[in-house]
Amino acid sequence: MDESPRPPRRGTGAAHGLLSADETGRGGPHALRGRKPGDRRVRVRRPHARYFRYGAPGVLVAKQAAYEPSGPMQRALTGARHALFGRPLASEEEAHERLPKWKALAVFSSDVMSSVAYATEAILFTLLAAGAAFFTYLMPISLLIVGLLVLVTFSYRQTIRAYPSGGGSYIVAHANLGTLAGLVAAAALLCDYVLTVAVSVSAGVFNVASAVPALLPISVPLIVACVLGVMAVNLRGIRQSGTIFAGPTYVFIGLMLLMIATGVVRTLLGDSPQVSGVTPAPVPYEAFGLMLFLRAFADGCSAMTGTEAVANGVPAFKPVEWVNARTTMVVMSALLGTMFLGTSYLASVSGAVPSTDQAVLAQVARATFGATPLYYLLVAATMGILVLAAQTSFADFPRVASILARDGFMPRRFAFRGERLAFNAGIVALALIAIVVIIPFGGRVEALIPLYAIGVFVSFTLSQAGMVRHWFTERGPGWRRSALINGVGALATGTVAVIFAVAKFSHGAWIVIVVIPILVATMLFIRREYRRHEAAMAVRPDLVMQRPHRSQRVVVAATTVDRAVVQAVQAGSTMADEVDVVHVALDREEGEQFREQIVRQLPGVHVAIVESPYRTLVRPLIRYLEVIQSEDPEAVVIVLLPEHLAAHWWDRILYNQNAAEIRRELVGREHVVVLDVPYRRELPEAA
Amino acid sequence: MDESPRPPRRGTGAAHGLLSADETGRGGPHALRGRKPGDRRVRVRRPHARYFRYGAPGVLVAKQAAYEPSGPMQRALTGARHALFGRPLASEEEAHERLPKWKALAVFSSDVMSSVAYATEAILFTLLAAGAAFFTYLMPISLLIVGLLVLVTFSYRQTIRAYPSGGGSYIVAHANLGTLAGLVAAAALLCDYVLTVAVSVSAGVFNVASAVPALLPISVPLIVACVLGVMAVNLRGIRQSGTIFAGPTYVFIGLMLLMIATGVVRTLLGDSPQVSGVTPAPVPYEAFGLMLFLRAFADGCSAMTGTEAVANGVPAFKPVEWVNARTTMVVMSALLGTMFLGTSYLASVSGAVPSTDQAVLAQVARATFGATPLYYLLVAATMGILVLAAQTSFADFPRVASILARDGFMPRRFAFRGERLAFNAGIVALALIAIVVIIPFGGRVEALIPLYAIGVFVSFTLSQAGMVRHWFTERGPGWRRSALINGVGALATGTVAVIFAVAKFSHGAWIVIVVIPILVATMLFIRREYRRHEAAMAVRPDLVMQRPHRSQRVVVAATTVDRAVVQAVQAGSTMADEVDVVHVALDREEGEQFREQIVRQLPGVHVAIVESPYRTLVRPLIRYLEVIQSEDPEAVVIVLLPEHLAAHWWDRILYNQNAAEIRRELVGREHVVVLDVPYRRELPEAA
Repeated sequence: MDESPRPPRRGTGAAHGLLSADETGRGGPHALRGRKPGDRRVRVRRPHARYFRYGAPGVLVAKQAAYEPSGPMQRALTGARHALFGRPLASEEEAHERLPKWKALAVFSSDVMSSVAYATEAILFTLLAAGAAFFTYLMPISLLIVGLLVLVTFSYRQTIRAYPSGGGSYIVAHANLGTLAGLVAAAALLCDYVLTVAVSVSAGVFNVASAVPALLPISVPLIVACVLGVMAVNLRGIRQSGTIFAGPTYVFIGLMLLMIATGVVRTLLGDSPQVSGVTPAPVPYEAFGLMLFLRAFADGCSAMTGTEAVANGVPAFKPVEWVNARTTMVVMSALLGTMFLGTSYLASVSGAVPSTDQAVLAQVARATFGATPLYYLLVAATMGILVLAAQTSFADFPRVASILARDGFMPRRFAFRGERLAFNAGIVALALIAIVVIIPFGGRVEALIPLYAIGVFVSFTLSQAGMVRHWFTERGPGWRRSALINGVGALATGTVAVIFAVAKFSHGAWIVIVVIPILVATMLFIRREYRRHEAAMAVRPDLVMQRPHRSQRVVVAATTVDRAVVQAVQAGSTMADEVDVVHVALDREEGEQFREQIVRQLPGVHVAIVESPYRTLVRPLIRYLEVIQSEDPEAVVIVLLPEHLAAHWWDRILYNQNAAEIRRELVGREHVVVLDVPYRRELPEAA
Repeated sequence: MDESPRPPRRGTGAAHGLLSADETGRGGPHALRGRKPGDRRVRVRRPHARYFRYGAPGVLVAKQAAYEPSGPMQRALTGARHALFGRPLASEEEAHERLPKWKALAVFSSDVMSSVAYATEAILFTLLAAGAAFFTYLMPISLLIVGLLVLVTFSYRQTIRAYPSGGGSYIVAHANLGTLAGLVAAAALLCDYVLTVAVSVSAGVFNVASAVPALLPISVPLIVACVLGVMAVNLRGIRQSGTIFAGPTYVFIGLMLLMIATGVVRTLLGDSPQVSGVTPAPVPYEAFGLMLFLRAFADGCSAMTGTEAVANGVPAFKPVEWVNARTTMVVMSALLGTMFLGTSYLASVSGAVPSTDQAVLAQVARATFGATPLYYLLVAATMGILVLAAQTSFADFPRVASILARDGFMPRRFAFRGERLAFNAGIVALALIAIVVIIPFGGRVEALIPLYAIGVFVSFTLSQAGMVRHWFTERGPGWRRSALINGVGALATGTVAVIFAVAKFSHGAWIVIVVIPILVATMLFIRREYRRHEAAMAVRPDLVMQRPHRSQRVVVAATTVDRAVVQAVQAGSTMADEVDVVHVALDREEGEQFREQIVRQLPGVHVAIVESPYRTLVRPLIRYLEVIQSEDPEAVVIVLLPEHLAAHWWDRILYNQNAAEIRRELVGREHVVVLDVPYRRELPEAA
């Protein structure tokens, strides 16, 4: 029945009409079996009302009740889940908050700001290998990094203008440099989101443990618990709410600026803060040289991770979006530069030393503020902003993964939003991968740093190179200047990325350098698989399929006479007037018993016994079906396979998997349709 | 169509008649679809002749060709398998060899005889802990063990007479003491078969490596290779051929007796063999005491493993079976006693010391014969008889497992005989478990010995206790004497079993003591599962099932329009004139696109769209089907689930498993039949 010429337009009643179509001429076949047309409708009025509301002709819309399971046990589980993660949200409930600049700064800068908690320390840790005397290089290196930050900031200002709908590295690189560059950028980003979570949470716990030494021995479990906590919050579907972010971010910024001001003033007054009682971490000696310098620089560049956040999030700004985003970007970079340089300066003058039990930022804070509440507050705010940085990854990783999944580069489930509109698969994947990264490194920040920031700089480079290409293609007003800025940015970040790869290669960077191509290859493979599948399954769009007119033979393959077989025979007899039951027998006697039972209990069913002197069951059955088929090559053989639905894992050991083997052999053959008829074994008293 | 009143009796033609039943009134439904009755028969004459021969009315017998796969690749694989394991054997080809006494002795005694290769060494290894001075206890312990052997021999003579059809411990204990005792005996036996393989092959390789030291470092891989070799031979379906066994066994017995005679004569002449240049194995010191003595005794009892073999194999003897079996049993025990005492005696006088590179038997043989060919021959014969001992386990384990499987205590596949009539599952399981045992113990015999023999003595005890019960029940002539003999045997072996458990507990015996109850519990669980399944699936034998007269609604659940869905719709339209396609849509637009495509490409099919604002697919679908069902509670809803047959392991990651989830939810509901319609994705060019 083709609906389109006769759409049922009868208000809400139409939804019911959809379900009981008797009056549209359907009663025919049922009437033959003794049912009066129309009696279906009399029995239950609008039985769907509990679960569905009317949507449009022929369309029902599921209500929330339709999603609830039936069993009391499952209902309780669902209740617990809703209590934990909140009630399900409908797709239309998605909120799009527009952020004023001061909130946007908080949302987008927590990642980049939080890196001052470990960047100075990362530089010192590397220099420590040559001896504390080389700590004099801390300030020059910090200045170099801030110079790079200025370049990148100006470069991203161009992107913000050009991609007001959000210019993530994957989008920009994909659009301008092609699929491969886009995927490399995406893989690099995904790696760095994982490392952001690992580094941020590890650094946060380390800072807190610097103030509360009792936590040091349990820091790995604490880190893992934090990651799982952030995961749970995200599964609940947290909004990137500006209000939540603003608190810890501004407290952190305020305290940091206060600390720097205090420290600088004290230094100018000749009472510079002094760190004492800290034993340097034991590190193997290494002579100072270009490589060590470059490595210290590279490790310090972890300060810049997260700079791209504003460019990704332009649409969240209030209009005019790109103008506000640009302003925010500049303010963010200025704050970051100030805090980073200030921290490095105070670390220099106070004689802070990387150690295994005192974070450098905590040392500086304690030296500046003393063990006052201000010190503890700063440590707490550091933890807070580092957790928010991890939260940023938990928002971005699933979003990038969902874009990749939508484009066919990742499994589709990453594009699927759960009950709370969150991309559950991406959230869970990020948490698990981060934990897998954290545990072998023992949650030590300085061990994770060498892996970090490569991904960011690879994606910086690709994104800015993409922008250069963009300007050359567009050639809008002022394109030369924009292209130049982006070109310089690309060159600078590209150089840094190469320095990273060379200088940090043997210190762990090789892991990322190996993982990124593997990720890219996997993503390409996944898209190829999806495309192949689609091509193989596609129905030609111009084809109009007619009802099959071929004759058919219905065959039930049975090893015994049980309820599953009876169900299959009865299903089979709805398809044809004749049903064959084929039984492969191990000996004559057993075969005759089977025949006798079928003849007695299922009258009218045809029995064929195939004796298998070599005992295998599957192959002779297949051959028998081939013989049936060859008798009438035009007929379709419908093979019904009674199947016991496995109730327990051990069922696979206790019962043969013959049905699966037969299916594997038969499916895909011409003129053969296989129907599995699963049967769920019930309790004996149900007999 | 009930066949029994009208059996087609037309010679070979009847088999064809079975396949084309047109002349028996089947043409009807097909004729409606435009097929002329009878044309199926005209097309192909006797298409089955290649694969099947006529067996009886309605019975085809598969020829060997029916078992061959079709593809060239699979054909080559099958060919290779046949070359390796031999051509398939039909069930009727099973041979039953009757053995004369001298062959039977070889077949049944290799296990028990071979233990002289390690029993003396096992005693010395334990005594070594207290110091070589305590080696003086070797002979008293050996005499004790021989005394026990005499008791057990007389006890088993009773069993042989009472169970002429084979009196394995499981059978005797099960029949007389009940299921639990039978299962304990069976579990103990299975454990000991595994350990026989592990100990025998390890000891064989150790003996060979004593003569060829280059093999010592690779002994574990050698042991594993040997086990796999014996497994392969057994998969080929070796017969327990007396001829094969006789050679190595009699060579070993002859050389052992020659060695003992030579050694004893040389000792009497004052030129006793002297072992030299052997460093004792390093063992932790332990003071001599009762526990150490008992442990040495228990380890020496490994000499008695395999004594029960004759009683298990009574039917293989020539008539009068039980008389010949008894004689063989006595000869076997006498030979074992002589060889064991002789070896222990020579080990005592020659000063043999357990070491990590020289087996004690090899030391004694070298001291007696010198490095002559006789020495090397004895080492080779030792290896030979030890491999035959392992072979005995490979015959017995699968046989016991098959009996247990037949009784429902083990998965059914253990009762299934493969192409070569061998119990493949049991053979492979034995080899794998033995390897799993060998590897952690590094193939060291002295480490495996403490686990060994407990199982044997547990099953000895249960078997003999069962015999006592048997005599008390039967009360035939002379039953008191038989009961007394068995009672003494049971008491003795029971005491020994307890000594084992206590003395060797911490030396590894606890493993067996833990495994046996787990095995028994598993076997009981398996039988309960099978019984429950049977009860749940059983069809009442008096029930005559009629064709279902209820009306039915056919519903295809579709997420997209692809070939799998088209196939399902077409299969559905053979079942009813109306087919509903249900589609759960994420939004209105997507739903309408789906409807439009179905209406255009599958005219006559009814479309229902269920919008799912909360995005989950499965639950609203289930609810929709419930609504359909509630409209007409008497109707059967047939749900067709198009399914993509997974082609690769990664398909489970790339594609949702919605069909499986829907099936899990729906199967087992009243008035719902679920049909899986698997579709195999083909290559795009097949489009």
